[in-house]
Amino acid sequence: MGIAAQFRINKETEIKDSLASKKMIATGDKAADKLTTLKLAEQISDLQNLLYAAHDAKLLIILQGMDTSGKDGTVKGVFGQINPLGARTVAFKAPSSEEKNHDYLWRVHKEVPGKGEITIFNRSHYEDVLITVVHDWIDTAECKRRYAQICDFERMLSETGTVILKFFLHISKQEQKARLEERLADPDKHWKFDTQDLVERKSWDGYQKAYQRALLATDAEHAPWYLIPADSKTQRNLAIASIVQEKLVSMKLKYPPGNPEYSKLKVE
Amino acid sequence: MGIAAQFRINKETEIKDSLASKKMIATGDKAADKLTTLKLAEQISDLQNLLYAAHDAKLLIILQGMDTSGKDGTVKGVFGQINPLGARTVAFKAPSSEEKNHDYLWRVHKEVPGKGEITIFNRSHYEDVLITVVHDWIDTAECKRRYAQICDFERMLSETGTVILKFFLHISKQEQKARLEERLADPDKHWKFDTQDLVERKSWDGYQKAYQRALLATDAEHAPWYLIPADSKTQRNLAIASIVQEKLVSMKLKYPPGNPEYSKLKVE
Repeated sequence: MGIAAQFRINKETEIKDSLASKKMIATGDKAADKLTTLKLAEQISDLQNLLYAAHDAKLLIILQGMDTSGKDGTVKGVFGQINPLGARTVAFKAPSSEEKNHDYLWRVHKEVPGKGEITIFNRSHYEDVLITVVHDWIDTAECKRRYAQICDFERMLSETGTVILKFFLHISKQEQKARLEERLADPDKHWKFDTQDLVERKSWDGYQKAYQRALLATDAEHAPWYLIPADSKTQRNLAIASIVQEKLVSMKLKYPPGNPEYSKLKVE
Repeated sequence: MGIAAQFRINKETEIKDSLASKKMIATGDKAADKLTTLKLAEQISDLQNLLYAAHDAKLLIILQGMDTSGKDGTVKGVFGQINPLGARTVAFKAPSSEEKNHDYLWRVHKEVPGKGEITIFNRSHYEDVLITVVHDWIDTAECKRRYAQICDFERMLSETGTVILKFFLHISKQEQKARLEERLADPDKHWKFDTQDLVERKSWDGYQKAYQRALLATDAEHAPWYLIPADSKTQRNLAIASIVQEKLVSMKLKYPPGNPEYSKLKVE
């Protein structure tokens, strides 16, 4: 069984706090695990060069998770070795008034990767079936409609050449408490803090339920959800780097064939 | 039966040259018909003001048709009275290399109307199941996949508040000949001419078949196709203006309620 398969969500998966601390892949030797992740990140960087040169496939990485779950840290730890020209990160915040004037997929579709590109979504259209559900901004019927629209949208992206990998970074409620307290204790980290984080934290259970439903409703062979225990940053980065590297290797990327005419050319 | 229903495509509709000259709505009195169209265009302009003020619904008009079928003329004749701020026309040309690097719906989704807006597509994503089919750039399986993707996409737009009206401006092969010759005879009209038009004309029958299939596969209550006989410009504009006006009226647009507090305000 490949590494990806171990983390794939399935109908039996229940998102609960005990999951977050499971060291499913880390060896326990932190230094060794970090080195492995770094090597994987370097391989991902090399594979990105190939992806870019081949100019055919597109890779979309979606990162979702509660506040402090480590989405930014994942970008740095897993994709930090990539040539910045070849990978783009898009952070989706609360929608602007122009964005609200359109359907919720509008701003997302604009940002999907083109041929040869890797795009990382820090939050995504999944917020539109998470925060909206937790706060009762949409009802069950609308939520189901959106699940279907998201499935259609991602299927179209897949059919038109986009490889999609979706990661839910799962932390425990206790770990979030520790991370929020750490941010509050350090004035240099205050910029990362938002009082709204404390409001959302009150809906912890509601979010876990909303994630559970959304992930199961939108998991697909061509757009799989991976459930990443993320209380340990080392575990988190190692797992995600492994899955991304495994996927890129499986794509059998190749440099385009050289032009035989070129060898006859003389540069004078 | 409303005017729209008369022009709606149905399974029995066969797209053929005899259709193009049928005067289904024009009275034959050209001057009177033009005056009617002008009045309708003014009503459309008034209704657009309401649409804009209500800031809720979105209106997407799609114009498709062979070269010289009068897409530009329709924009001018039917939407020419609208405040340019309230209606936007987007002409889709052969895709750029950046556009080709993405799925074919990418550039289209970017341009869909926001709340309170009217957007007119001069050509659209339908080119991706027309010219591509006629020239065998895509096979039948891919074409069917795209029909399904287009249906999903338009359903999502509709579910998120977009009213969609799709018009196929149908001219006869003979009328196109006359219009192309007119362009060639007048140097001032040469800018409208492209030698590629003559190449595409050779595939006339292929286009009619591709249109027939695409229109039937993508017609839906929430995204209906109207087949507009367009050999007569008067007939064409009158028909389209009537359908658009009828639709806008049916939307029962209203100015948002006034704020009772405002009447108490004093401006000093």
